[in-house]
Amino acid sequence: MSTLILLRHGHSEWNAKNLFTGWVDVDLNEQGVAEAVKGAQMLAEAGLAPDVSHTSLLRRAIRTSQIVLDGIDRHWIPVKRSWRLNERHYGALQGKDKKATLAEYGEEQFMTWRRSYNTPPPPLADDSEFSQAEDQRYAALPDELLPRTECLADVLDRMLPYWYDAIVPDLLDDKVVLVTAHGNSLRALVKHLDGLGEDEVVGLNIPTGIPLVYELDADLKPIVKGGQYLDPAAAEAAIAAVANQGR
Amino acid sequence: MSTLILLRHGHSEWNAKNLFTGWVDVDLNEQGVAEAVKGAQMLAEAGLAPDVSHTSLLRRAIRTSQIVLDGIDRHWIPVKRSWRLNERHYGALQGKDKKATLAEYGEEQFMTWRRSYNTPPPPLADDSEFSQAEDQRYAALPDELLPRTECLADVLDRMLPYWYDAIVPDLLDDKVVLVTAHGNSLRALVKHLDGLGEDEVVGLNIPTGIPLVYELDADLKPIVKGGQYLDPAAAEAAIAAVANQGR
Repeated sequence: MSTLILLRHGHSEWNAKNLFTGWVDVDLNEQGVAEAVKGAQMLAEAGLAPDVSHTSLLRRAIRTSQIVLDGIDRHWIPVKRSWRLNERHYGALQGKDKKATLAEYGEEQFMTWRRSYNTPPPPLADDSEFSQAEDQRYAALPDELLPRTECLADVLDRMLPYWYDAIVPDLLDDKVVLVTAHGNSLRALVKHLDGLGEDEVVGLNIPTGIPLVYELDADLKPIVKGGQYLDPAAAEAAIAAVANQGR
Repeated sequence: MSTLILLRHGHSEWNAKNLFTGWVDVDLNEQGVAEAVKGAQMLAEAGLAPDVSHTSLLRRAIRTSQIVLDGIDRHWIPVKRSWRLNERHYGALQGKDKKATLAEYGEEQFMTWRRSYNTPPPPLADDSEFSQAEDQRYAALPDELLPRTECLADVLDRMLPYWYDAIVPDLLDDKVVLVTAHGNSLRALVKHLDGLGEDEVVGLNIPTGIPLVYELDADLKPIVKGGQYLDPAAAEAAIAAVANQGR
């Protein structure tokens, strides 16, 4: 049996400002730091000690993982990172205010961009201040792999190779694996793990800062579908709050 | 030509208390955090952007590297860690007060333990509170590899395999390599790089928090022997201060 711990980074400077973030590399805010500290306490109380840490290339996930691992005295474990765990690229919405976007485009278009499985927002121009076209950390990525916008289906497609090539080998090696990432890269992973349909994942929210633990069998199927949050009551409350973002 | 940046972690809680630290995993203190922030500024001003980060398994080096990389927007680069970059194991001196040790054993014995190339302090008992015999991070190390005390010659011996197997390939791959480590693991590396004799390395001090940059030729020989500190005046002052520790 393998143990996979999924952790969505805590609140960031742009969560607080209610802006679409995507691949823009904003930092955690104080609340986000506090969430990471709390997440560490939950792992300590559950006696869960990760053997390896996987993160995206974005600061809010990296810092969350560092704070969590430092808090449980596992700061020294191996670290692997990939752009494939990044948040969904939000296209032309990156940097835009969520409320203003809702007002400008209306409920239906807004919810389609936020939640539809197959419809990405319009692409972001490479000369936008919110573009990653010139970002050094993606310099080795062939241009056709660098997203300018993504829907959740796109995130699943680009995330899965990292799952199979980097995370699965660690799980099969009997390691306790921590994956610190983002709302949508984790939704994509949960869709894959739980075998959710496109309709089901549309309604799925993953709260920030609360470790979600999957015990997986030899075929890497979840023993308990949906996994188990280390603080289920807090998770339930937070899921409701996320669903109301932008209102 | 390859670029190697050596960085000794900043002041720790036990530097401030004047205790021998070695493999005990103490954290940076506020001064140490400030030194890391400054080190980042020096790298930024020099236009040096590491492509890969190597650290020991000790928190004070790990945190230093994280603060430095975060400060220069390189938090996302690959990270590799090894016990082979750890500080010298200080044996039975770990946890002891430097001044008290000097008073108890006298100048000659004290300086022999601190600075002789070949004489390690007495070994640390596995049941000491300052022992790493049960430390999870070394659980995969065969018992005969786990040091109970070390002299500088021992540090060089156990550091070199990591230099050849992990750091050299990155340098030959034309990466800018950051190695964040400790006074003695870095002295051992500098001895190797500069071809210092045993007598020469005994007099070598490496200041904390000031990046030491080596440009290396195709045979990984330094273009400038001794490398170049990014703040030479501060380095000179700090070297004098280190030499007076324990007085």
